[in-house]
Amino acid sequence: MDKNSFSSDDEKFMRLALEQAQLGSFTTRPNPAVGCVIVKNGLIIGKGFHPKAGLPHAEVYALQDAKNHGFDVAGASAYVTLEPCSHYGRTPPCAKALVESGVKQVVVATLDPNPQVSGRGVAMLQEAGIEVRVGVCEQEAKAINAGFLKAMATGLPSVRVKIAASLDGRTAMADGESKWITGSAARQDVQKLRAKSGAIITGSGTIIADNPALNVRLPSLDLDNITQPKIVVVDRSARLQHTDNYQVFKKTDTLIWRENLPELLKTLVSEYQCYDVLVEAGSTLSTTFLQLGLVDELIVYQAPCLLGDSARAMFAGKFDKLNQKLNFTLMKTEQIGEDLKMTFAPKPQST
Amino acid sequence: MDKNSFSSDDEKFMRLALEQAQLGSFTTRPNPAVGCVIVKNGLIIGKGFHPKAGLPHAEVYALQDAKNHGFDVAGASAYVTLEPCSHYGRTPPCAKALVESGVKQVVVATLDPNPQVSGRGVAMLQEAGIEVRVGVCEQEAKAINAGFLKAMATGLPSVRVKIAASLDGRTAMADGESKWITGSAARQDVQKLRAKSGAIITGSGTIIADNPALNVRLPSLDLDNITQPKIVVVDRSARLQHTDNYQVFKKTDTLIWRENLPELLKTLVSEYQCYDVLVEAGSTLSTTFLQLGLVDELIVYQAPCLLGDSARAMFAGKFDKLNQKLNFTLMKTEQIGEDLKMTFAPKPQST
Repeated sequence: MDKNSFSSDDEKFMRLALEQAQLGSFTTRPNPAVGCVIVKNGLIIGKGFHPKAGLPHAEVYALQDAKNHGFDVAGASAYVTLEPCSHYGRTPPCAKALVESGVKQVVVATLDPNPQVSGRGVAMLQEAGIEVRVGVCEQEAKAINAGFLKAMATGLPSVRVKIAASLDGRTAMADGESKWITGSAARQDVQKLRAKSGAIITGSGTIIADNPALNVRLPSLDLDNITQPKIVVVDRSARLQHTDNYQVFKKTDTLIWRENLPELLKTLVSEYQCYDVLVEAGSTLSTTFLQLGLVDELIVYQAPCLLGDSARAMFAGKFDKLNQKLNFTLMKTEQIGEDLKMTFAPKPQST
Repeated sequence: MDKNSFSSDDEKFMRLALEQAQLGSFTTRPNPAVGCVIVKNGLIIGKGFHPKAGLPHAEVYALQDAKNHGFDVAGASAYVTLEPCSHYGRTPPCAKALVESGVKQVVVATLDPNPQVSGRGVAMLQEAGIEVRVGVCEQEAKAINAGFLKAMATGLPSVRVKIAASLDGRTAMADGESKWITGSAARQDVQKLRAKSGAIITGSGTIIADNPALNVRLPSLDLDNITQPKIVVVDRSARLQHTDNYQVFKKTDTLIWRENLPELLKTLVSEYQCYDVLVEAGSTLSTTFLQLGLVDELIVYQAPCLLGDSARAMFAGKFDKLNQKLNFTLMKTEQIGEDLKMTFAPKPQST
């Protein structure tokens, strides 16, 4: 499909559909975040998003929104950020709802990644005589549901490692003191990372040293509708005995993991539908994830301070030669309070 | 002077004068960079900047530029980024040239900081019946000549510490290998820092280990007109014996310094008219400058890579408690090639 065949209006309407999708991004797990706008004669007559698993999909809300405002959907165009579903799940297929609505055109940002589903929604629409175009704002649409799409395609979740460090790459003083290196704004931003994650992975060392809750508690988030992420404690050496002592075990579904990490990631997808995983751990476990090449995104909150050479290192790798270093591409920087949030994508390791 | 009394036109014209000033910023040392535009009936009729010590000042170039284009300067306004001089030096006073030109108004961004000169240029203009206003874009004008202004006011230069490091705060592998952590674009940017510096301070350890030239050699800079910065090698332990071995001593004015650092800074101003000093050194010397509170600006070129826990630290301070950390304010970030250039201002140390 030739991307140049899309008009700037197509992109404008799809961006609005993507904004709709974002409204659900904290609450739809394990479902993908999807948005839809209905356009007729160049005017937006309806919009909607999928808010939560079990509730209707974005297309249904958008069609209903148009009707609620007295618009006739017949002959309109629907912009949808993900291919409409074609199967009966907890809700009837959206492709069917679109066919019945009388829209004449459906514009899709990206296909459903599940090979067994991909293209079937489009086919159902086309069989009903609806014109379908696919690929408008495809990169943005894929980014919104990176974990879902990766999991459907590969069986592995999208893995994000978060590290809070000083400018000289230190995460704590030698005695472990680390409260606080980054500021409150950065720590609140971490809450949003948690809210977008199906699971949080930490290590037993962090549990024993800090006894964190690792829950989402930022009041500005819609806490009633957020499913708290599943917590996984990696405990290879079986250090955790009396779990009653620790906050994370107040949640009965907290998992203690003593196998290898690739197996954990597969299990999180297959058993728990956790597609976006956040690693919030000490440098030992974060380093293992990075060195095994299991990481899709590294987020560093860097505080504008120097902690010195006896403080603890953010990355525990031991390299002799410069060409052994781990390389990244800096994707984004954002000032959060006094700190700098940097988002990196790992480069393939040269081995 | 009430800043709100300046019009947006004043700021527009002063910004153009500041752009002119920047054109000289690599070549005017030890003189400040100054720009001037002449405005009549809302039109710019002349502009100029001070290119180099010994050549005419900005006002003279701007007045000449207007005349060259056939404009009558009488009744015009002159926008000058620094108070016009009132004394006879290598050139006649600019205030006199402005008086003789017939301009009716002079707008000045900032006064000359030298207490013995400050205000005299303005007074000379006012005595001749010229309307003078001071303070338009004052912060920007001060930033352009930060070193000159600090030196005139305090007798100390503006000190900038430059460090190239990895994301985990490392500057070299354990064996010293460091070519290259940052990319070529960042290394070229360092050449511009050098070109803006009256002196470069390094340590004998860096000279012995790397034998750098520390000169300005970027072809895109006007190398014929740049005065190469004075090089200072701090050698507290008298490790340098056979200076013939090292590139920096091909310059006959390279200074070996064995006294304390505050005294060095004073000497660079009083003896050598070096007002902007760049510290390009290993972590021992950079750390000393930072811990003594001698630094005005810290520039970190951060490469998007992890070098690991056995690599050398960018900052050699040894702190036990978190409240001993050195704190900064992040002033600016800029992506340079694949690296991130970060500019920090030190915060006052809590002692």
